[in-house]
Amino acid sequence: MKSLTEYLVFNTANRREFINITSQIEELVGESGVKEGLCLVNAMHITASVFINDDEKGLHHDFETWLEKFAPHEPVSNYRHNLTGEDNADAHLKRTIMGREVVVAITAGKLDFGPWEQIFYGEFDGRRRKRVLVKIIGE
Amino acid sequence: MKSLTEYLVFNTANRREFINITSQIEELVGESGVKEGLCLVNAMHITASVFINDDEKGLHHDFETWLEKFAPHEPVSNYRHNLTGEDNADAHLKRTIMGREVVVAITAGKLDFGPWEQIFYGEFDGRRRKRVLVKIIGE
Amino acid sequence: MKSLTEYLVFNTANRREFINITSQIEELVGESGVKEGLCLVNAMHITASVFINDDEKGLHHDFETWLEKFAPHEPVSNYRHNLTGEDNADAHLKRTIMGREVVVAITAGKLDFGPWEQIFYGEFDGRRRKRVLVKIIGE
Repeated sequence: MKSLTEYLVFNTANRREFINITSQIEELVGESGVKEGLCLVNAMHITASVFINDDEKGLHHDFETWLEKFAPHEPVSNYRHNLTGEDNADAHLKRTIMGREVVVAITAGKLDFGPWEQIFYGEFDGRRRKRVLVKIIGE
Repeated sequence: MKSLTEYLVFNTANRREFINITSQIEELVGESGVKEGLCLVNAMHITASVFINDDEKGLHHDFETWLEKFAPHEPVSNYRHNLTGEDNADAHLKRTIMGREVVVAITAGKLDFGPWEQIFYGEFDGRRRKRVLVKIIGE
Repeated sequence: MKSLTEYLVFNTANRREFINITSQIEELVGESGVKEGLCLVNAMHITASVFINDDEKGLHHDFETWLEKFAPHEPVSNYRHNLTGEDNADAHLKRTIMGREVVVAITAGKLDFGPWEQIFYGEFDGRRRKRVLVKIIGE
């Protein structure tokens, strides 16, 4: 069994951002030498997501509006978590909807993707250094 | 390490449907010869889901009503994504709640399931050909 | 390839509870002897979750309030699933938001976690015996 472990680092300019990381993951799959296996990609922070969807700006705007509706950032006093001095309770909820991780098949040495699948890092409490873990196993 | 890769094809009569695919996945686990391992099942399209829940018609009706409440199909003009000419922005959001993928344990050559766990394909923008990926690895 | 399969049993005093199971999973990773691999942890019941987030009481209160808002337990007659004689349709929906499973990387014989990641069992229809599956594969 082969394996590869890598950590991607993000430090976004904005509180919330979606970043397409597909090409970075594809490169790591190539490096790993794995032809048949699984690739786990997960946020290592609990106010961020890794998810798969379309790379379309309008859709990302819809996600942003929708998440803000169901887990609004303000008023921050609406959340008991924010009594700890944080203001990011909404980010914990948003990340829960979008998901912590994806598991992607590797077939014939490549990410085995449908026509529109792209991997995104979803930041909901940015402007500081955060990491994503990539773990590849297979043969 | 053994592995198996298979693609299931769906073309639903309706825009939205839930289809129980458990027996198809069980068959593939048998074919794979894997006794101990993992089975990934994921939608390859970004307006569809694979999820695990109960095979109970009333519950499926509740899911449908609930998803429509939180991500209504209409008015389609409510979504910026639909400016691209699509009318399926709601399907991207519904799939996000229901999930892209499941990872299931294989133990002693079978899906290691609780008493009510069943695997479903969740279609939110059907009436066209779409695929599900099954990837099994183990020994 | 090495593998380990274990079943954790829960029988909560309350209908809804969040239980930190991180140390139990860490012990099983140690027992497995796996140095590089993947660890799947999933609820085996369809009204319970396994998820990763912060071990902070205020946040757990926020999750509880938020889930109850989007999938209220009462009136139970609001859900067609409850016509079966069950009163747990809300628990199926809550578990869908929180997720069935997590897949965690094992690196150098340990759960490869960010600073605040903790694994929780999320019960939404407790007061009876329910199980969580832990499957570890790797080398």
